[in-house]
Amino acid sequence: MYKLKSLTSAALALGAIAIATPALAQDAAAPAANQAYLFNTLLFLLGGILVVWMAAGFAMLEAGMVQAKNVSMQCLKNISLYSIAGLMFWLIGYNVMYEGVDGGFIGTFLPKVIPDTAKDAGDYAAASDWFFQMAFCATAASIVSGTLAERIKLWPFLIFVALLCGIIYPIVGAWTWGAGFLNKMGFLDFAGSSIVHSTGGWAALAGALILGARTAKYQDGKLTPLPGSNMPLATLGTFILWLGWFGFNGASQLAFATNVDASAVSRIFVNTNLAAASGVVIAIFLSQLLYKKVDLTFALNGALAGLVAITAEPLTPSPLWAIIIGAIGGIIVVFTVPMLDKLKIDDVVGAIPVHLFAGIWGTMAVPLTNSDANFVTQAIGVGAIGAMVFSVSLVLWIIMKYTIGIRCTPEQELKGLDISEIGLEAYPEFKKGF
Amino acid sequence: MYKLKSLTSAALALGAIAIATPALAQDAAAPAANQAYLFNTLLFLLGGILVVWMAAGFAMLEAGMVQAKNVSMQCLKNISLYSIAGLMFWLIGYNVMYEGVDGGFIGTFLPKVIPDTAKDAGDYAAASDWFFQMAFCATAASIVSGTLAERIKLWPFLIFVALLCGIIYPIVGAWTWGAGFLNKMGFLDFAGSSIVHSTGGWAALAGALILGARTAKYQDGKLTPLPGSNMPLATLGTFILWLGWFGFNGASQLAFATNVDASAVSRIFVNTNLAAASGVVIAIFLSQLLYKKVDLTFALNGALAGLVAITAEPLTPSPLWAIIIGAIGGIIVVFTVPMLDKLKIDDVVGAIPVHLFAGIWGTMAVPLTNSDANFVTQAIGVGAIGAMVFSVSLVLWIIMKYTIGIRCTPEQELKGLDISEIGLEAYPEFKKGF
Amino acid sequence: MYKLKSLTSAALALGAIAIATPALAQDAAAPAANQAYLFNTLLFLLGGILVVWMAAGFAMLEAGMVQAKNVSMQCLKNISLYSIAGLMFWLIGYNVMYEGVDGGFIGTFLPKVIPDTAKDAGDYAAASDWFFQMAFCATAASIVSGTLAERIKLWPFLIFVALLCGIIYPIVGAWTWGAGFLNKMGFLDFAGSSIVHSTGGWAALAGALILGARTAKYQDGKLTPLPGSNMPLATLGTFILWLGWFGFNGASQLAFATNVDASAVSRIFVNTNLAAASGVVIAIFLSQLLYKKVDLTFALNGALAGLVAITAEPLTPSPLWAIIIGAIGGIIVVFTVPMLDKLKIDDVVGAIPVHLFAGIWGTMAVPLTNSDANFVTQAIGVGAIGAMVFSVSLVLWIIMKYTIGIRCTPEQELKGLDISEIGLEAYPEFKKGF
Repeated sequence: MYKLKSLTSAALALGAIAIATPALAQDAAAPAANQAYLFNTLLFLLGGILVVWMAAGFAMLEAGMVQAKNVSMQCLKNISLYSIAGLMFWLIGYNVMYEGVDGGFIGTFLPKVIPDTAKDAGDYAAASDWFFQMAFCATAASIVSGTLAERIKLWPFLIFVALLCGIIYPIVGAWTWGAGFLNKMGFLDFAGSSIVHSTGGWAALAGALILGARTAKYQDGKLTPLPGSNMPLATLGTFILWLGWFGFNGASQLAFATNVDASAVSRIFVNTNLAAASGVVIAIFLSQLLYKKVDLTFALNGALAGLVAITAEPLTPSPLWAIIIGAIGGIIVVFTVPMLDKLKIDDVVGAIPVHLFAGIWGTMAVPLTNSDANFVTQAIGVGAIGAMVFSVSLVLWIIMKYTIGIRCTPEQELKGLDISEIGLEAYPEFKKGF
Repeated sequence: MYKLKSLTSAALALGAIAIATPALAQDAAAPAANQAYLFNTLLFLLGGILVVWMAAGFAMLEAGMVQAKNVSMQCLKNISLYSIAGLMFWLIGYNVMYEGVDGGFIGTFLPKVIPDTAKDAGDYAAASDWFFQMAFCATAASIVSGTLAERIKLWPFLIFVALLCGIIYPIVGAWTWGAGFLNKMGFLDFAGSSIVHSTGGWAALAGALILGARTAKYQDGKLTPLPGSNMPLATLGTFILWLGWFGFNGASQLAFATNVDASAVSRIFVNTNLAAASGVVIAIFLSQLLYKKVDLTFALNGALAGLVAITAEPLTPSPLWAIIIGAIGGIIVVFTVPMLDKLKIDDVVGAIPVHLFAGIWGTMAVPLTNSDANFVTQAIGVGAIGAMVFSVSLVLWIIMKYTIGIRCTPEQELKGLDISEIGLEAYPEFKKGF
Repeated sequence: MYKLKSLTSAALALGAIAIATPALAQDAAAPAANQAYLFNTLLFLLGGILVVWMAAGFAMLEAGMVQAKNVSMQCLKNISLYSIAGLMFWLIGYNVMYEGVDGGFIGTFLPKVIPDTAKDAGDYAAASDWFFQMAFCATAASIVSGTLAERIKLWPFLIFVALLCGIIYPIVGAWTWGAGFLNKMGFLDFAGSSIVHSTGGWAALAGALILGARTAKYQDGKLTPLPGSNMPLATLGTFILWLGWFGFNGASQLAFATNVDASAVSRIFVNTNLAAASGVVIAIFLSQLLYKKVDLTFALNGALAGLVAITAEPLTPSPLWAIIIGAIGGIIVVFTVPMLDKLKIDDVVGAIPVHLFAGIWGTMAVPLTNSDANFVTQAIGVGAIGAMVFSVSLVLWIIMKYTIGIRCTPEQELKGLDISEIGLEAYPEFKKGF
């Protein structure tokens, strides 16, 4: 913002050109040689911003889907988890995921070092890559907060987030994106249907099983709907997530320096949008057919399921394939949301259908359009990730349950976590009652 | 996100440089030759994201401006219309608009083919262009949903959206942007004051006339205000739309590869912002003068009218001209919102004044600052678009009215569409009453 | 959006290459020579959009933190102030700040001229720079509206905004960024901890002193909490601000044309995010320790204080330093919010602790990581800015107080500004009561 500073930068840039001028052939070389570095870095930064924005999307979706008495708590959990994710992914997460995995299972436990700008060699700024990856890590944690809303205590939840973002998710990431054993086997998961979304979903499922359902939900053997308190917020959250997904999938191309890369990112945008759109349309058709009413929450979760499904391979599908993959995501939501209720697994926002089930579908669908993938390897990847994340999460939840306790008391739950745990109502002036 | 994948991309890029090295003169050519392609593609993707974000803006604006009993339905309509727009614009819309129009009236009815990334020649990625244009198409549909809120049934509305996005809007687009007859005549509409906004406005006006006003609105010969249920949401929606408009107008420059193009995009940003700002300021001044109170909804619609007005020509005006053009947009809103009420045309969010009237003003104002335009041709364009869109829409609304029916029953309307049509309240816990 | 237009641009670009072809050495020169111009312009436009988005963030934060009866007014103030800021910064602000300051105190009082696109020489588009700077100017005004909410009249507030954005803030800016006397002394404030945030904070403090507290707040000698009416909106506002801050700090690097610049922007993103995250975490820890409850508003203000603190120098700190700087910002909030209440200075949203106190801290912390800065010069800058902004603001508030009056009547305040001053409730259907 300094006028002078700007002039200085300008002078430097012009200087670079000026110095190069005598050598005719290099006339344009000075500014052009770094084109790839600049475009790739820009891709990471813009993609990172969009994925960071998803943290707000999850916050709004969840704030809209919980009861009014738990909204402040849900907001607090979301801003806290995003913060903790960022700190943990710097402290150990990034290096666990990317440093020295070499076909194995885990990297090193060290903070990420951001190199000096003058020595930041490579095809992109190291810090831009960290920023982009950090945002993914936060996404996995956001998934858990939705499922376990309205009855989990704040601090045990945040401890789990720290372990998920610092260790569990980075290990999963190391296996494939960190060049670990799944990568060597040929497992493909472009932007993380399994690595991010199913990981969050498995951790949420383990938590839901150990934590139990909300007291009122399945009381006396019958299902009591506990409708979300603010549908436009939930809708806003979904639109934010949809928007952020262009960064999530598009920037996972990891490069924007060649025509092929830019064309690929563009194609990913189109497929991502079509999959989400078909997830919505199939969900509203199906809910009209099955229930004679179109349920807004199915439309919202249909969009998200379409997005999760296309995430494992957003590049190779034709538009029509993208529509089919997204539509099956939407179908999964419509049928598995009631299924979870039958199993008395209480998932407040429907995150398990959306992120776990549609994530598995998306991962298994990769071979349909990408000949480099095969069903067996995809299934091994899905199974390995599921087994590790689910079992480790289960152990963590059980340990916490029997030590510090993870669940609010029934009185706190009845009163609402906003008053009982944090003393701040979300809508203090609006009279409540059904 | 693959570590290896990143390295591979890197290797490819470095390889391209390495291969070029022996030929001194081409040293920098390899990475530089595609600079235009990369910048143009990036412009389309970023512009597209911003215009997609406008779908969320319309959703929030409308959710805030309808009564609490219709908010879930309004959210559902908005996410559904955006989804249907995307599918229809792929299925036929894009090619109706852009393929083989050649001075005529209409293109071909075929799905848009996304070329293979390796063969994606041209000045930008074909998919990025589709993505950007798709977002515009959705905008036209969003306008209709606001006007017809609180009494139109879901499915007839969605059928209209499919036809609007698949056929009506693309035909309008073909006439000018698709190189059709209006383009040959010299009609100018840079980013769509008429092509997008008035199109949406005419379709909405036709719908409002056939559908009739909300039952309570003009009952017993007097005007009953039905105030919006959530003003901060309406404000948020307006801010989102304002933000999205930088993509709407800025990226309509269609190129960011030369200094002139980048300077033009920047100038468009400035003019777009000044027009919106002056729309707000004039609206609050006028409402203070006329009504002794400053109405927030006039301020919001003043911003939007300023934005619509500058959209037909955001590049050639000086900042002062941009301020004048936007201010007249704001004035139009303040005077025509009450006028519609006198005519008993019920426009829930004020979309007809904002998008139709300010859109006509913006289109007619082009010759004031752009010597390539003339008033006669502009008037012909405005008239041709209006005649076609209004009459076709009118016919469609009438056909649907007398076949499947387009209007909820008075009982449903009284109860609210959320409970009666979709069974999901937007704010189930907040006690209501005036 | 014109198909033809696109082809024309394409032809021009291709033409540029074609013309250059004969001269082998310049083959790639034509498109490459302007790389710096394009990247720098893009940085300003993207950064500008993000900072514009902060206006929506402040609006939502404040709409959520005021009582329900004042929400429409707060929305109106925010969209109006952003509009007025944009107009004033064009009319005189920019040139007061940047034209002919030359080591002095103030520039010229003339409208900003946007050069013709064909003559827009330099390292970036002039309009993109104006756009970016305009958005900063609006930020300073947004800070004031939060502190003075719920009792200041609309028009006196808007008059103050016009003077703040047209004169006061630009003069402060001129001293450092406009190459004025503080810049000559070596005062460093990278993206405006003092220049933007403390300026807004000092103006707000002066206003709070002259305006007095809300009637109900410190009545009968005891503190009455007046809790915000909508916590998810306040949370959304904070997420928006956090997102916008990547543009605020990142694009203040002012260049993206060299690897070093791109690496610096990336590093700024990382440090900005870590500072905010640590502000949140320290605030929730401290509020748990001190009050046995975790307060959501401390978490939100902790994020903002971390962001303000890192703004004066987001580039030179290591990640660990960024965490420390942000954490101290969070600590400042937790301790100074109650302190203001003891002094009976009524700051509705906590803007003085966040923007003024954390802004001073951030400015004084620059020498900790940047050896070009020293504590004495930093203190001189902090003092000079504070003395000028506070005293001029104080005079303006006093003049307005004793001429047109700045405060609503107690009746209006009790009834709420929405009904009494603008006649439009924010949530007209929701029954209120504690």
